Amino acid sequence: MTPLPSPDPQAGAAVKAADRAHVFHSWSAQELIDPLAVAGAEGSYFWDYDGNRYLDFASGLVFTNIGYQHPKVVAAIQEQAGHLATFAPAFAVEARSEAARLIAERTPGDLDKIFFTNGGAEAVENAIRMARVHTGRPKVLSAYRSYHGGTTTAINVTGDPRRWANDSGAAGAVHFWTPFLYRSPFYSADEAEECARALEHLESTVRFEGPGTIAAVILETIPGTAGIMPPPPGYLAGVREICDRHGIVFILDEVMAGFGRTGKWFATEHFDVVPDLLTFAKGVNSGYVPLGGVAISGAIAETFAKRPFPGGLTYSGHPLACAAAVATIEVMAEEGTVEHAARIGESVLGPGLRELAERHPSVGEVRGMGAFWALELVRDRETREPLVPYNAKGEENAPMAAFAAECRKNGLWPFVNMNRTHAVPPCNVSEAEAEQGLAALDAALATADEHTTAA
Amino acid sequence: MTPLPSPDPQAGAAVKAADRAHVFHSWSAQELIDPLAVAGAEGSYFWDYDGNRYLDFASGLVFTNIGYQHPKVVAAIQEQAGHLATFAPAFAVEARSEAARLIAERTPGDLDKIFFTNGGAEAVENAIRMARVHTGRPKVLSAYRSYHGGTTTAINVTGDPRRWANDSGAAGAVHFWTPFLYRSPFYSADEAEECARALEHLESTVRFEGPGTIAAVILETIPGTAGIMPPPPGYLAGVREICDRHGIVFILDEVMAGFGRTGKWFATEHFDVVPDLLTFAKGVNSGYVPLGGVAISGAIAETFAKRPFPGGLTYSGHPLACAAAVATIEVMAEEGTVEHAARIGESVLGPGLRELAERHPSVGEVRGMGAFWALELVRDRETREPLVPYNAKGEENAPMAAFAAECRKNGLWPFVNMNRTHAVPPCNVSEAEAEQGLAALDAALATADEHTTAA
Repeated sequence: MTPLPSPDPQAGAAVKAADRAHVFHSWSAQELIDPLAVAGAEGSYFWDYDGNRYLDFASGLVFTNIGYQHPKVVAAIQEQAGHLATFAPAFAVEARSEAARLIAERTPGDLDKIFFTNGGAEAVENAIRMARVHTGRPKVLSAYRSYHGGTTTAINVTGDPRRWANDSGAAGAVHFWTPFLYRSPFYSADEAEECARALEHLESTVRFEGPGTIAAVILETIPGTAGIMPPPPGYLAGVREICDRHGIVFILDEVMAGFGRTGKWFATEHFDVVPDLLTFAKGVNSGYVPLGGVAISGAIAETFAKRPFPGGLTYSGHPLACAAAVATIEVMAEEGTVEHAARIGESVLGPGLRELAERHPSVGEVRGMGAFWALELVRDRETREPLVPYNAKGEENAPMAAFAAECRKNGLWPFVNMNRTHAVPPCNVSEAEAEQGLAALDAALATADEHTTAA
Repeated sequence: MTPLPSPDPQAGAAVKAADRAHVFHSWSAQELIDPLAVAGAEGSYFWDYDGNRYLDFASGLVFTNIGYQHPKVVAAIQEQAGHLATFAPAFAVEARSEAARLIAERTPGDLDKIFFTNGGAEAVENAIRMARVHTGRPKVLSAYRSYHGGTTTAINVTGDPRRWANDSGAAGAVHFWTPFLYRSPFYSADEAEECARALEHLESTVRFEGPGTIAAVILETIPGTAGIMPPPPGYLAGVREICDRHGIVFILDEVMAGFGRTGKWFATEHFDVVPDLLTFAKGVNSGYVPLGGVAISGAIAETFAKRPFPGGLTYSGHPLACAAAVATIEVMAEEGTVEHAARIGESVLGPGLRELAERHPSVGEVRGMGAFWALELVRDRETREPLVPYNAKGEENAPMAAFAAECRKNGLWPFVNMNRTHAVPPCNVSEAEAEQGLAALDAALATADEHTTAA
């Protein structure tokens, strides 16, 4: 590891003071947060101004799939900045063309046209817009356990408490239940039953909402922030079949699961299903420059061959963002990052997390693959009562807050949501780093164990 | 001017071919467009692969306020990329803090907290979200002649045909008429009457919609794409007063008009009005890296002091985008770009465009200030019949298409919308470049004159 620069608490205090005076933060009560001032980052680590280094088991917000400051991607950004930092979307620009080509090469099936956005929310907005125009229908079906972004339609199809304050915004969002055997909405005994019942539930919901009113079903291939629940074998193929039968567009949201996170370029490769539209962001360029997009099937592209697509944005296909995507994809291909993520999941993270689960009564379930894992923390393994209630705030959430604080004390920056911690390091995390992360989780889980019925 | 690199039509053809195969373009019928492949750009110019150089009188999509490839901003992006390209939004990061501080220093009144987004649409989405939560009311009033962005709520408050295909998306968007003496919705004889009647119209609309149902009035300080209509003296102050009287949040959208475009840092300085929320993007960093945001008043920030703000995004306050904003603002301050824009408007663009209007019967009106001008093209100056009908397509739009083609033939890339051409070069456009642009417009207007009743 590179030695840390000398601590500079005064500089950190200045950064923090300007932040507190002028930066309004996402999803937060502004006076109840205390943002850490970050001085630098490299690979799987970042550090503050006080000499503390953290192993980033959150990959930022699950986007630094190649880690921080990859020299080849940094160089590509610097080169593009020196050549042509920006250009309007109505033109053909090399970085834009090349990024689209490299993405289309990797997306499944005939998803060969790429509409670029600045991030995941706009990708979801535009995918849904395409589905609505393509079908002429208004409604969109999505999962209660999901996150699809912060703009009006994206937050309204989301299933997450962050939706609630935004529910008056958009029309046509209908939520349904997706398979999750550990907390089965269908009282299933096993995966096959969960799959069959979840498909019956979707089919019934479609029939009762009115198939002719439904433009799209949108699902995260593997739900991310909502809990990393890989769908049972056959589920996504079943959804594909229901959509086909009713003329509904099937959108897979791979903003978080795409670009290597699950040990495949796209998570849908695990399930051998091709959606009509696939949304991406984050991993496409590891978030080095804001970028998202939609990969579009031939049939849907055809709808907009002679009829204008009613959507767009000033920075669609931004050259700097696209150059970062080109370099990121090339780096991932050269370095075998996707295969590495699969291997680290199979040989280190998966076995390591399962071993922790054996020793810690607070771990109810371990789920995931690649560099995409969730630990479900519980008070009681039998009843599966969550360690904290759904959407817990303040005192109610104290056990999870204490767990996160303990991780940080041990040099690990965790991803924490509800009663879960996710192990989502960069896809190129080394074996030693993964082991360090597991050791830090081990120590922090001891504090969670104290809140279990076993304690 | 730097000599152009040698033409390389083969490289251009490759870029174009990959674009046509894989890039899905904004607001377009994909098979009816023919994007020009762009090889490079500098200052006020860009060039293609065939040896053609264009003076960019569109500033991209009205965002390159400091022109292309400003060396200091390029260097700042390269430096930030080498130091810390990206970081998650929940942390304090120097570039983010500094960008927020520099913006807050320049925004009027107590708009001192900055929520960063990736672009203008998300800025509008989040400003409206803040207004709805702050007031507890659902509706938003906006202008029939306006553009506010492409995401669900942003496009629904927009007044522009691009809204029509998206109208089923969001709830609560109500449109009203704003002052535009040249095509007065109120049959006014002069500016003072137009202002008084427009305010009466808004007051009546508020009363009939129900003041207690209205969260916000959102206006572009000076409407941009809709036609660059500076409001008459007293209008914005009158809207401010109506909003205050009814407890309505007043949002000014300065995505296009802000950051020097009108010869002030913010257009609202011309009118001495302080909104509750101000949205920005584009000029904040000349579009070198995607960035937008909302500047927030003390009272609205207070609403979210102890209560979570229900909005956010992965790349809020992206370090690379913020570093570009810091450098852009510093460059504009050092080089007097804002004052330059005011001067070029007063001494070159304004007089030059008015002189064209005297000689060309196709010019119905010249409007604007700074580097922000519109020519309203008409068939007949008396009847003011537009050169092409509202939202004209195909053959109907031929006169405007011919005008634009003639501009390009003369080395000028124009901004064209409906029956208007806008003269919106970079804010630091030189006098000689402005004169070159005026000469090219002069030649192209001759083709427009052929469609007038005077021909």
